[in-house]
Amino acid sequence: MIVAGVMSGTSADGINVALARVQGRGFRSRLELLAHYQFPYPVEVRRAVLAAMNAKSASVADLSRLNFVLGELYADAVRAAQRRARLECELVGCHGQTLYHQGNPSPFLGHRIACTWQTGEASIIAAKLGVPVVSDFRPAEMAAGGKGAPLVPFLDYVLYHHRRHGRIVQNLGGIGNLTAIPPRALPDQLVAFDTGPGNMVIDAVTAHLFDKPFDRNGRLAARGEPIESVLRELLRNPFFRQKPPKTAGREQFGREFVRELLRLCRRADDNDIVATATALTARSISIAVRRFVLPLVESEAANSARFRELVVSGGGTKNATLMRMIREELTPLKMRVRTSDDFGLPSEAKEAVAFALLAYQTWRRLPSNVPSATGAKRPAILGKVSYA
Amino acid sequence: MIVAGVMSGTSADGINVALARVQGRGFRSRLELLAHYQFPYPVEVRRAVLAAMNAKSASVADLSRLNFVLGELYADAVRAAQRRARLECELVGCHGQTLYHQGNPSPFLGHRIACTWQTGEASIIAAKLGVPVVSDFRPAEMAAGGKGAPLVPFLDYVLYHHRRHGRIVQNLGGIGNLTAIPPRALPDQLVAFDTGPGNMVIDAVTAHLFDKPFDRNGRLAARGEPIESVLRELLRNPFFRQKPPKTAGREQFGREFVRELLRLCRRADDNDIVATATALTARSISIAVRRFVLPLVESEAANSARFRELVVSGGGTKNATLMRMIREELTPLKMRVRTSDDFGLPSEAKEAVAFALLAYQTWRRLPSNVPSATGAKRPAILGKVSYA
Repeated sequence: MIVAGVMSGTSADGINVALARVQGRGFRSRLELLAHYQFPYPVEVRRAVLAAMNAKSASVADLSRLNFVLGELYADAVRAAQRRARLECELVGCHGQTLYHQGNPSPFLGHRIACTWQTGEASIIAAKLGVPVVSDFRPAEMAAGGKGAPLVPFLDYVLYHHRRHGRIVQNLGGIGNLTAIPPRALPDQLVAFDTGPGNMVIDAVTAHLFDKPFDRNGRLAARGEPIESVLRELLRNPFFRQKPPKTAGREQFGREFVRELLRLCRRADDNDIVATATALTARSISIAVRRFVLPLVESEAANSARFRELVVSGGGTKNATLMRMIREELTPLKMRVRTSDDFGLPSEAKEAVAFALLAYQTWRRLPSNVPSATGAKRPAILGKVSYA
Repeated sequence: MIVAGVMSGTSADGINVALARVQGRGFRSRLELLAHYQFPYPVEVRRAVLAAMNAKSASVADLSRLNFVLGELYADAVRAAQRRARLECELVGCHGQTLYHQGNPSPFLGHRIACTWQTGEASIIAAKLGVPVVSDFRPAEMAAGGKGAPLVPFLDYVLYHHRRHGRIVQNLGGIGNLTAIPPRALPDQLVAFDTGPGNMVIDAVTAHLFDKPFDRNGRLAARGEPIESVLRELLRNPFFRQKPPKTAGREQFGREFVRELLRLCRRADDNDIVATATALTARSISIAVRRFVLPLVESEAANSARFRELVVSGGGTKNATLMRMIREELTPLKMRVRTSDDFGLPSEAKEAVAFALLAYQTWRRLPSNVPSATGAKRPAILGKVSYA
């Protein structure tokens, strides 16, 4: 079955469309990426999305209209992708644009609730394309007691599980997160958690010192050296000791954290400071792997049954200095560092591909959450089906 | 199949749950109401819903939370209904709480879009009850080019179509609307439109003159006489001449209209004024029937093939004076006036029953809109399916 996966990330840049061939059932599915395209949002749509995400308060009428406009744009994007690839999909999985996500329950109107909100009207997509659409994946995960995220570990398992050696899939977005797939793992033996900052701290430091949005290709960090004493101080942050499952965000590694980093580095060379921020991401990954992943198989650690590879995906793979530092950190652990591109999956396509795979499961009425990653109490069939 | 229908109206009073047995397929379905219950919203929930409906601006986080809290409340309501009725449903159809509805397209972010928004998270209902849920019926109707409303004509057809005589189903909510089902009509021969004020003007006049929310049982109107000259003046409103399909709301029959009515009645007795408002609803129905419904079968008007009954539902059926006036208006047309209660369907259960019926169609992957009522370009399978 050819399935289109549609994703819009929190940066609100636009729409990722992946066309994938999916076969099989559940965790034994097989997946082949056929094509992938990115479509930027029109400027005024991006502005409206960012306003809705960041506003404490928004117009109810405009939120309703935005939902329908995004539906139109998603349909147009899938149509354009099909035309360019000369393929037609039989099913669409659309994540939508997240406007709000609160993974941990808190009291509201007499109930303790977690909640999540993805917008982009699936009925419009189904009507315009003439195929069924699965949308709104996260609420069912929360209804099963989970945090509604991460949902990508299901794809990680399907792509990377291996009979003889374990793999760790490390994503480097704003935050870093990993999915550990032990050798011969059953799906419920996956471990997934946030490792700490991904690009978030590097970007913030680069913006502050060099007035650039990010350290392109890691060139600034390459000209400096990490300051080991600062690194050690930053790694005392309790987040790195906390046992998984754990999630991080701007609350842990946002403005406050960056201010502290800059304070500790006060008289240092600017390139050394960017190098330190970069080393922080690399070191936090190796710490996570040593503390929380390797012990998973230690008890049964025949030499043949261990974690041999770290597969890196996300924007961070474009930072050559970061990738070099991660390699240096993991070599003593006898782990090889690869990128998801090596497996035929471009980093930027990954989430769109994930929602093609999840939609396929829902269409087959199969669950696709990974309770060990989300904290859910049980498997859940994710999303809602709109018929054409 | 036993299906629960769940409805929350725009008055935001609470939750109607109907348990119905549904059989057959599409327009040939049969339906039996098994039980019906009403559950008021907790005070703070009603306040939050009304605030979200009326606010120009609302907190994005709170709107997301409200969606999940309503899901919990809907699940609880269905559970309570099942316990009291000693029945278990196999499917739920949940309309949700409308926060916004714009039936006519207007420009937004470079697109011409109509839109609608019903809240109340279906994934929560499916998870808590362990049965599939169909929700969010209106967007697919709009995606098919319709106004997303009315959706009740499908139920009207299933309940009231008749081989030998035509029936008109008149609902009296705030606004009055009718569905005309000609004798031997095929589903696409239905005609549905708003007739004008239902209880809206009567309620407003009663509130203004007697400081009461409505004219209980029509007692105030019963003590007065309609002022014919005022009535004739009010009926010059262009809405009553406008050809169907047409919809009315507060824009036509809200504060402005009531001010004009009171101005025209200036020196009249208060009871006469309420009687005039009541007669306006009755007269506007007979005008709609004469002008737009009876001509439908006139061409083929064998005496046996005509509209013989007006079946009234909605809160207005409790107003004895209004019902008497409607009878007086329709007697010259040789039409009998009945209430939906006569057919075993309590007025207040009707919409909840409708969404049980529509959910059943969607579960069978059958369309259930009535294009001649909504203006849609084609039949559409309504709603989104969440699996348990």
